[in-house]
Amino acid sequence: MDNNNLQSILSSLYNKDISVEQAVAHLKDLPYQDLGFAKIDHHRALRKGYPEVIFCQSKTPQQVVAIAKAQMSHGETVYGTRVSDQVLAAVKEAIADVEYDELARVFWRRSESWKMCENTHGRILICAAGTADLSVAMEAQRTLEIIGHESRILSDVGVSGIHRLFSHREILQDASVIIAVAGMEGALPSVIAGYVSCPVIGLPTSVGYGSHLNGMVPLFAMLNSCASGLTVVNIDNGFGAACAAASINSVRII
Amino acid sequence: MDNNNLQSILSSLYNKDISVEQAVAHLKDLPYQDLGFAKIDHHRALRKGYPEVIFCQSKTPQQVVAIAKAQMSHGETVYGTRVSDQVLAAVKEAIADVEYDELARVFWRRSESWKMCENTHGRILICAAGTADLSVAMEAQRTLEIIGHESRILSDVGVSGIHRLFSHREILQDASVIIAVAGMEGALPSVIAGYVSCPVIGLPTSVGYGSHLNGMVPLFAMLNSCASGLTVVNIDNGFGAACAAASINSVRII
Amino acid sequence: MDNNNLQSILSSLYNKDISVEQAVAHLKDLPYQDLGFAKIDHHRALRKGYPEVIFCQSKTPQQVVAIAKAQMSHGETVYGTRVSDQVLAAVKEAIADVEYDELARVFWRRSESWKMCENTHGRILICAAGTADLSVAMEAQRTLEIIGHESRILSDVGVSGIHRLFSHREILQDASVIIAVAGMEGALPSVIAGYVSCPVIGLPTSVGYGSHLNGMVPLFAMLNSCASGLTVVNIDNGFGAACAAASINSVRII
Amino acid sequence: MDNNNLQSILSSLYNKDISVEQAVAHLKDLPYQDLGFAKIDHHRALRKGYPEVIFCQSKTPQQVVAIAKAQMSHGETVYGTRVSDQVLAAVKEAIADVEYDELARVFWRRSESWKMCENTHGRILICAAGTADLSVAMEAQRTLEIIGHESRILSDVGVSGIHRLFSHREILQDASVIIAVAGMEGALPSVIAGYVSCPVIGLPTSVGYGSHLNGMVPLFAMLNSCASGLTVVNIDNGFGAACAAASINSVRII
Amino acid sequence: MDNNNLQSILSSLYNKDISVEQAVAHLKDLPYQDLGFAKIDHHRALRKGYPEVIFCQSKTPQQVVAIAKAQMSHGETVYGTRVSDQVLAAVKEAIADVEYDELARVFWRRSESWKMCENTHGRILICAAGTADLSVAMEAQRTLEIIGHESRILSDVGVSGIHRLFSHREILQDASVIIAVAGMEGALPSVIAGYVSCPVIGLPTSVGYGSHLNGMVPLFAMLNSCASGLTVVNIDNGFGAACAAASINSVRII
Amino acid sequence: MDNNNLQSILSSLYNKDISVEQAVAHLKDLPYQDLGFAKIDHHRALRKGYPEVIFCQSKTPQQVVAIAKAQMSHGETVYGTRVSDQVLAAVKEAIADVEYDELARVFWRRSESWKMCENTHGRILICAAGTADLSVAMEAQRTLEIIGHESRILSDVGVSGIHRLFSHREILQDASVIIAVAGMEGALPSVIAGYVSCPVIGLPTSVGYGSHLNGMVPLFAMLNSCASGLTVVNIDNGFGAACAAASINSVRII
Amino acid sequence: MDNNNLQSILSSLYNKDISVEQAVAHLKDLPYQDLGFAKIDHHRALRKGYPEVIFCQSKTPQQVVAIAKAQMSHGETVYGTRVSDQVLAAVKEAIADVEYDELARVFWRRSESWKMCENTHGRILICAAGTADLSVAMEAQRTLEIIGHESRILSDVGVSGIHRLFSHREILQDASVIIAVAGMEGALPSVIAGYVSCPVIGLPTSVGYGSHLNGMVPLFAMLNSCASGLTVVNIDNGFGAACAAASINSVRII
Amino acid sequence: MDNNNLQSILSSLYNKDISVEQAVAHLKDLPYQDLGFAKIDHHRALRKGYPEVIFCQSKTPQQVVAIAKAQMSHGETVYGTRVSDQVLAAVKEAIADVEYDELARVFWRRSESWKMCENTHGRILICAAGTADLSVAMEAQRTLEIIGHESRILSDVGVSGIHRLFSHREILQDASVIIAVAGMEGALPSVIAGYVSCPVIGLPTSVGYGSHLNGMVPLFAMLNSCASGLTVVNIDNGFGAACAAASINSVRII
Repeated sequence: MDNNNLQSILSSLYNKDISVEQAVAHLKDLPYQDLGFAKIDHHRALRKGYPEVIFCQSKTPQQVVAIAKAQMSHGETVYGTRVSDQVLAAVKEAIADVEYDELARVFWRRSESWKMCENTHGRILICAAGTADLSVAMEAQRTLEIIGHESRILSDVGVSGIHRLFSHREILQDASVIIAVAGMEGALPSVIAGYVSCPVIGLPTSVGYGSHLNGMVPLFAMLNSCASGLTVVNIDNGFGAACAAASINSVRII
Repeated sequence: MDNNNLQSILSSLYNKDISVEQAVAHLKDLPYQDLGFAKIDHHRALRKGYPEVIFCQSKTPQQVVAIAKAQMSHGETVYGTRVSDQVLAAVKEAIADVEYDELARVFWRRSESWKMCENTHGRILICAAGTADLSVAMEAQRTLEIIGHESRILSDVGVSGIHRLFSHREILQDASVIIAVAGMEGALPSVIAGYVSCPVIGLPTSVGYGSHLNGMVPLFAMLNSCASGLTVVNIDNGFGAACAAASINSVRII
Repeated sequence: MDNNNLQSILSSLYNKDISVEQAVAHLKDLPYQDLGFAKIDHHRALRKGYPEVIFCQSKTPQQVVAIAKAQMSHGETVYGTRVSDQVLAAVKEAIADVEYDELARVFWRRSESWKMCENTHGRILICAAGTADLSVAMEAQRTLEIIGHESRILSDVGVSGIHRLFSHREILQDASVIIAVAGMEGALPSVIAGYVSCPVIGLPTSVGYGSHLNGMVPLFAMLNSCASGLTVVNIDNGFGAACAAASINSVRII
Repeated sequence: MDNNNLQSILSSLYNKDISVEQAVAHLKDLPYQDLGFAKIDHHRALRKGYPEVIFCQSKTPQQVVAIAKAQMSHGETVYGTRVSDQVLAAVKEAIADVEYDELARVFWRRSESWKMCENTHGRILICAAGTADLSVAMEAQRTLEIIGHESRILSDVGVSGIHRLFSHREILQDASVIIAVAGMEGALPSVIAGYVSCPVIGLPTSVGYGSHLNGMVPLFAMLNSCASGLTVVNIDNGFGAACAAASINSVRII
Repeated sequence: MDNNNLQSILSSLYNKDISVEQAVAHLKDLPYQDLGFAKIDHHRALRKGYPEVIFCQSKTPQQVVAIAKAQMSHGETVYGTRVSDQVLAAVKEAIADVEYDELARVFWRRSESWKMCENTHGRILICAAGTADLSVAMEAQRTLEIIGHESRILSDVGVSGIHRLFSHREILQDASVIIAVAGMEGALPSVIAGYVSCPVIGLPTSVGYGSHLNGMVPLFAMLNSCASGLTVVNIDNGFGAACAAASINSVRII
Repeated sequence: MDNNNLQSILSSLYNKDISVEQAVAHLKDLPYQDLGFAKIDHHRALRKGYPEVIFCQSKTPQQVVAIAKAQMSHGETVYGTRVSDQVLAAVKEAIADVEYDELARVFWRRSESWKMCENTHGRILICAAGTADLSVAMEAQRTLEIIGHESRILSDVGVSGIHRLFSHREILQDASVIIAVAGMEGALPSVIAGYVSCPVIGLPTSVGYGSHLNGMVPLFAMLNSCASGLTVVNIDNGFGAACAAASINSVRII
Repeated sequence: MDNNNLQSILSSLYNKDISVEQAVAHLKDLPYQDLGFAKIDHHRALRKGYPEVIFCQSKTPQQVVAIAKAQMSHGETVYGTRVSDQVLAAVKEAIADVEYDELARVFWRRSESWKMCENTHGRILICAAGTADLSVAMEAQRTLEIIGHESRILSDVGVSGIHRLFSHREILQDASVIIAVAGMEGALPSVIAGYVSCPVIGLPTSVGYGSHLNGMVPLFAMLNSCASGLTVVNIDNGFGAACAAASINSVRII
Repeated sequence: MDNNNLQSILSSLYNKDISVEQAVAHLKDLPYQDLGFAKIDHHRALRKGYPEVIFCQSKTPQQVVAIAKAQMSHGETVYGTRVSDQVLAAVKEAIADVEYDELARVFWRRSESWKMCENTHGRILICAAGTADLSVAMEAQRTLEIIGHESRILSDVGVSGIHRLFSHREILQDASVIIAVAGMEGALPSVIAGYVSCPVIGLPTSVGYGSHLNGMVPLFAMLNSCASGLTVVNIDNGFGAACAAASINSVRII
């Protein structure tokens, strides 16, 4: 409900094209669908640039399927993250042509109107410090794909053998945004952000053990980076990093 | 030292325009100045788009002045953050026409070649939840100014009276990037990121008490936001939020 | 054992209606039943307004059944929370007409004298930020029902799409008490408490991941709310929030 | 801006008593005053039942005085908490007949229309475990007074000599709401909540040392109480406990 | 190897009753048995008053059985704590007449010379706050029994209905030492230590949820008790509490 | 108020030696003195074996002096701990013949009836790991002295040169109770408790830096000791360790 | 790529023995093999003295096998740590003559050129506090073996019976480096480092319970040791302790 | 007291060259000096290779001076760390020719027999990430000097401009041991340990702010490094890092 809508509804009322009751109804109109246990936000694509995504963790398979079907009935693209085996089984049974990626733990079904974004600054780069961080990096890449942004993954370029990273200098410098994925001590984003000028998003993972505190160590390391221009998302939050990168990569016409 | 340089040095060597010794020297050339206790990174402006900044906390006044003078002798803009009273006094005495902002705790002296950036996506918006968060918001604004980006502050728009925020709908929707500053429970960035499509940077502050843990609560709240596209910087890190925002706001030509 | 009892026992003694031994016995009389491993507090309904509830976590199925049967033999309503599958199976086998709710993880059997409270301020509102918070919200609702208070749940009204909450303005403003349930960053109670004048109880949930710390983040966010009049209960403690809400909703005659 | 207002504005427009521009202006009207660094929420009394309070910590004396004067010019009661010596000096100089309490660290100036609430359930009881907790208890009492609720303090009734508490049985049972203030191990609220049926608000204090973690221990102890019906506020948050108690103590007419 | 031994060995040497080599051997004599992976401390009974106990957690069933058999071959009593199902099965198969308690998770086999201690101050009392704390209380009781001290358990006497505790006043005041077992907010030991003069040992349990932090909350509450004379052992450490209580309960002849 | 009192009061009533009103009064008689801000527990000496002690931290000098004077007027010994310079100055001015120890931060004034305990098991030993731990060890020794128990301090016997401890073998083995004081890694109590059979109380101190967490490290180390029979008090709590040691050292006649 | 290589490549270029393109290629040559998901660092043996090791935790069995085979095809020794049952099964099936140790959770296959190091300072000693720490100690020993260093384990020499350690004085004093492994309170490394002059590496384990925090307690205890010369590795990091010990034990020729 | 001493004392006794009493005295001889509050460990130089050092934090100036004088009277070198202004003033007044370094916060006075070590592997390298880390690096260097080891500092070579480090390749590769000092995110030791083969000691500093947790972040980052062979000391522990480096740098003759 933006300012133009407001002007237009009030003008209609002033011109008596609509009644006071209709104006009240318009002004209180619900931009979401109420399933009882969930209120699907069908206007999110307008507001954020991409549809509401189903965060499947802590939802029952039944709830996930119901939300997905409601979105499909509005012709929307469906995309679910953090999928358990049970949820995936239920989704595969309920939705005929659903696609999924078991490593990234996501499923999706593109709407008919789905297409890649046309106005982007370029290609997003995802650097993963170790092989064990790949699952989180893949969640980011799958999410970018659904939102319509192209991306590329450089895997196993962590700081214990830093020459592996710097041999890809040109790829680093060509990126429009970089998502730097790291567990353990989380040093990779600092090194990258000290080297490039594009925005860098630190994505800590829970890969580690002992005093690693399930990812708190790389999270804090990234937040305390001595390299400027680095911002950070939650541990293992490939989805959030992708949304932020897509937002940065979108050409804005102001 | 980029790829073109490498090609060019090696070609000179191949053509015997330079000796092996000169090639070695070029390939090992130091893009920084060694003060003994500090190695000033004069190439940072090329690499990152803005000069090295003096983080004054934990440095002695003598060290700060020496670094500032070395930068000035290279014709660089000088900018210092987290300035104590002692450092500020030393800087004011040592540098004739230095400028400063006591609320933001920064000082600066623009070089002759300083100018605002010409290719930006628009104006950066800084939203501060409470009056007590202003000092951190001001550090962000001063930093943006030095880096060459225009910004505007909306103060006291926290969630305890959320109508104060939504009455500025148009300003929110016109921004190219938003820095959302909040202490206490840190809910403001979530509400903003749920509302706009541009990138939002959460900037937690240490304003609070008791179980606030000196800013850890708003930091964690922002990292766990249910709104997508939000990234976060360290507590009270106005400088870092500004660098990230400037990086996002810069038009890239790829 | 209140003051009137004391007066009355002592008067009986003074009048030699009872012996010293009987007075001692009365004054030391046990208002509970001793099962050896448990001492059932049969006076709790008098003291607190509702009977002792069986917190089943960390109890063996045998212990739960024994306590339930002891309560039933006193004609009391039985109500158990945090029921595991094993406990539920044992209870269903041991108690003929027991009722239960698998999502809320509770079972109950109303006594013959059970009835809804007659003197309440109105209807209690339970707002749940996300679908995944429903299980905790349901524990609160079931508890309120057993204690005799009517309630209503608004689900999926979190701050990532805050218009979904404000479209229920009137329901919010009609409530006598509101329980605001939220995981993730826990911002919902702040927004509600900034909007209404009735008491608001923040109920954090363990829904989240990474730096969420199993619910510590929304717990701390609620404790540090910039909205006044908000109080908080333990993570996932739907039972406690319901007891507090019922206590507030009870009309007191002083 | 409630539903009746909306109806009334739209009817005026329909009847052309006001223009479209006027309707837009009304619908976007600001219920707050913009001081630049602060946006004073003059509608808060309507929304919450008491005026906006000045949380003075982290504000400059100049900011506090400016906010206080703006409130006074609207005929509102002024009330500031967490006052430092500097803020108090500035306030005493700037506001002629200001009152203050140095132990509770608050100042106030009642408006002409100030009066005690007329519809309350009764008297609020504040129980403080130790003498050292009195400062926080006093912040609660002063706040209640300004909001218009009567209260009484029982001091030094902690669990190390629990007979001191139980000798006040009748006072406990007569209260409409109890605020239980405790530092150290924070056991007092549990004992009280196990004894009375009225709502109990746990108010942890930072009184303690060593592994006390500046109040985190009593805070967590209260959140994990085995007594039902207990809710909790932030450490040392006498103001918040008072607001919650006042909200509970207000007779609602639904 | 005490002082008398030293005198005696050296005198023998001085008198040439033993050779230098024998003296060296005596002075370096190993008061333990080396199994390779374990060095059994057969002198512990002399030093501490009770034999070495097998802490079974993190040991393989084979290791537990081997240690138990080595102790039996020295005629020692065998006692194992924190027994998993696998360890218990292995022990039952390997040791003919072993006894065990599944709730307390311990097994034992008394040596022929085992007997109750003769010189004790009296009977040790174990108070458990809730039924769910019984398993830990039982570990303490079984340990005391093996060490030769009589004890008694009072169960379900937590602070949510504190009259259940005080109805056992005489038992409390007759105890020579009290072990106070509590999970949740851990208030019971404070209340008891404020009431009795004998030593009180706080034994926190992991019974709780949410912000309970697996027992850290009652542990910290007990450490911060406002009641003096209370000491504390690790979470769920019934064994340690029993050893400390036995040590206190032993009559010392100095 | 013990059982004999109860019998006696009720018998008097039965015999009409006292009226019902008098019986009520007796049964509700206050065993403490109410100063308004403090309720002095004059019965504590009966209940605990030593008088109420003034914990001076977080109390104003005026409050400390008032409590001390009230105790003196009852002929009680006065003892204050954690004394700041301001409190000590106020106490020295207000109480003519007060004594104090600046290292231990305590003051005291013995009552006329004060005397050393007559029935103790022996002498208490205090072992301090480093010179820096002496202040806390002294608080324990001064407290023991006031309570009437003799003690001896062994200083600087930490594990970095463990031969310094073992050269005092006989003193260790003669002690009736040992208080083991240690900062840094807190290993001393483990080593001692593995060596002696008397009760050992671990007293962690805040001496350390960096990851020492202000004493949490030695506190946790002691709680996790592999030596049995060790109990622990709060960080820097010399007073508490002394009370526990005195309680253990008292000969009980049962 | 060291300095000599640089000189040599540039001389070849100067002498036109190689072209500019070849020089560029040489200077950018990749010292690793790219498997897509992993970039194997074949130069690590040159740089670090031992080949890249496969940290198997968080890798799929397929990834582990593929990396192992790639290393074998370069004639390198293969060594994997933190092996799950699934990974071990896959490795045993895929690699004919692989060896493994189930307690240490490692597998290995020596290359043909594998041999023990020839220039070492001596034998490395591994002291394990308890039997339950053996698994971690074994990971260290197996790693040392693969890297080519001899070692010896002393098991069950913890501080609860410290005479078991000191009876091995000579072994302690003969070691070139000591790895001290301990869970619980982690006191063993302090005691050893206070006794010997060779470097001591503290290796904390997760053996413990309750407030042990999964190994954080011994980790912090070791970091805060009052014995000098002690350094520490991550919890359960037998591999890292072995690498550090091997590095210290290697004779350097400078 | 080593094995040869034992043989020799016992032989003397056997030969009746000494009496039993003398043998007892020898066997119990104290290798330290007892000042009452301190027991100076004069044998430490024999045991550890360097004399006991005075950790001045938490000691009174009087205690520091007394310990220093006792050491001087034994002809030992005196060295104090973590010196406050008060301690330094007292030391300067009491010890005529004391030397000190205010940045490193240490003082020293070499004994007449002091000399540099003769058998070392080479020169120790200290790399400091930022200028603000210099104070801690200097404590390490001064300590090494006193212990007799040469060292060199490379300052301001942190990862935000990693070319500054790699331009010193040869210095890195020539070092016998490297101490890597870093605050902020603590990434420098990982990068160095991934590059060199000599032992690397990570030394975290408290330089940082916000979620830096006073140095816990770089401490944890170093412990979780993906580079092998890195060990770590406590935050700001320049002394400990130096002791460990010296121990590693000493040529051992076995």
